[in-house]
Amino acid sequence: MTDHLLADQHAPSVPAPAMVVALLDGSLVSSSAPLLRPDDAGVARGDGIFETTLVVNGEPRDLPEHLGRMAVSAAMTEIDLPDHADWQRGVDAVLDAWTGAAGTGAPAADMVLRLIATRGPEHGRPTCFVTGAAVSPASTRQRTGGVRVLLLDRGLSGPAAAAAPWLLAGAKTLSYAINMAALRYAAAHQADDVIFVGSDGAILEAPTATVVVVRDGTLLTPPLEGVLAGITVDRLFRAAGSAGWTTAHRRLTPEDLSTADGVWLASSVRLLAPVVSINGVPRDDDEGLTEKMLGLLDFPLR
Amino acid sequence: MTDHLLADQHAPSVPAPAMVVALLDGSLVSSSAPLLRPDDAGVARGDGIFETTLVVNGEPRDLPEHLGRMAVSAAMTEIDLPDHADWQRGVDAVLDAWTGAAGTGAPAADMVLRLIATRGPEHGRPTCFVTGAAVSPASTRQRTGGVRVLLLDRGLSGPAAAAAPWLLAGAKTLSYAINMAALRYAAAHQADDVIFVGSDGAILEAPTATVVVVRDGTLLTPPLEGVLAGITVDRLFRAAGSAGWTTAHRRLTPEDLSTADGVWLASSVRLLAPVVSINGVPRDDDEGLTEKMLGLLDFPLR
Repeated sequence: MTDHLLADQHAPSVPAPAMVVALLDGSLVSSSAPLLRPDDAGVARGDGIFETTLVVNGEPRDLPEHLGRMAVSAAMTEIDLPDHADWQRGVDAVLDAWTGAAGTGAPAADMVLRLIATRGPEHGRPTCFVTGAAVSPASTRQRTGGVRVLLLDRGLSGPAAAAAPWLLAGAKTLSYAINMAALRYAAAHQADDVIFVGSDGAILEAPTATVVVVRDGTLLTPPLEGVLAGITVDRLFRAAGSAGWTTAHRRLTPEDLSTADGVWLASSVRLLAPVVSINGVPRDDDEGLTEKMLGLLDFPLR
Repeated sequence: MTDHLLADQHAPSVPAPAMVVALLDGSLVSSSAPLLRPDDAGVARGDGIFETTLVVNGEPRDLPEHLGRMAVSAAMTEIDLPDHADWQRGVDAVLDAWTGAAGTGAPAADMVLRLIATRGPEHGRPTCFVTGAAVSPASTRQRTGGVRVLLLDRGLSGPAAAAAPWLLAGAKTLSYAINMAALRYAAAHQADDVIFVGSDGAILEAPTATVVVVRDGTLLTPPLEGVLAGITVDRLFRAAGSAGWTTAHRRLTPEDLSTADGVWLASSVRLLAPVVSINGVPRDDDEGLTEKMLGLLDFPLR
């Protein structure tokens, strides 16, 4: 079902296919074959929503939470989303294909699972599909090697965005051009990633991740105003709370990042990438802290 | 090359096909057949650029200007854009198909011409194509009937956006989810369109149009900070200048709109849609002014 194989250099397992793609009826389609019509609103207007999560040992992490957030995105964008059972059928087809590709006995490589729903062609139904792909070398590397980040102005403030539903803050739409441009800007300026700062000086989020900070034994993340509700940080905070840590959503400033005991970008695929420099200024955090946090996420570094 | 025909109820001519689609080698493809791979960045991330213009009597309006602005968008997003000659080949194929569909002797209906370039699949080339479709009934209607607009907060200011290249202000990207959400918000609140207001209180632009105002015989539009450079307003200002009007880019406030002699949304397909109400407050402008302005655009109302 894929037309070529690509060796996965980073998982302790067998070669994985480049990408597997399934429709919600469970059928597999080739990732190199066209799937979307030129008049699909997802193509013409970035008008659609998505979710991404990590599959470990054949199990998608936090799938109910991702389906829940996708339903929130669908409500905000007024996209008529199929039922969870339909998504599950597509997910199962991708998982089966991925595991099958690993051959009998061998563990399947970790996989990036993506659920996509576009608004579809005019007067048509949403275009929905599920993809599975290898975890990028950069994602794996950044879990241990960390990320050098730039603080970049997001132009707006979290509270202003939260007050204006048409700005779609909190919806995970396919309109990611700004997020991608920010990452290209970072790459062109000796950095790996970006933390967006609001026009009010508050830390917002990264283009594809949530900001998490540890200070004096407390786990902190920005308030849910104008940012996406992070599923990984939710899981982290639940586990941390059970383990006796204090956790809080709190307004953070660039100064707070500089003086924190640790700063991470939390996301479903990278999990926790320690921030090793901010605007070119190195941080020298305790690596044991990252390991402890990954333990809370039930994902020991390998 | 299209699988069904749709009667055009608004042009004084023969039925037009629903949509014609051409690749840049001049070949035609069906609009109802898939064209984009699921792993195309245009699909997965709204990562691409586009231009739209109107074709009248088989002639695209301002095509060199649109290709020029597309090159600006390409530079800002670092997309490797094909040459003008390649785009011209695709445009010609769409024009021929559209005109051919009209049959011999009959004038072809006006057409919306769209040029699209996505970043393509990872490590691949951009996906480029040209589409032609009928002018929507709403567009035609709004040229004479006008639009009821809401003023909506854009969250950021024009100067802030202009100072942050990663925010892609001035690039016409496929990431239009916010623009579409604003239009849906308007439709849900007894309005047809939106004028975005900056966090500094300055008028910015509409989701798919530029704001133009006449006050005391002077044509005004907001400064080119954080907004798309409007090709229709450029043409209007050039013609108006030649006809003896004063024109200026100037900071405008909601108050300026209320007290203006006329307010329009200028765009390539609708051309000039008079604003007939703002936040529910009706305007009662001189219709002769709209006719005069359309004359400057070389497009008499029919």
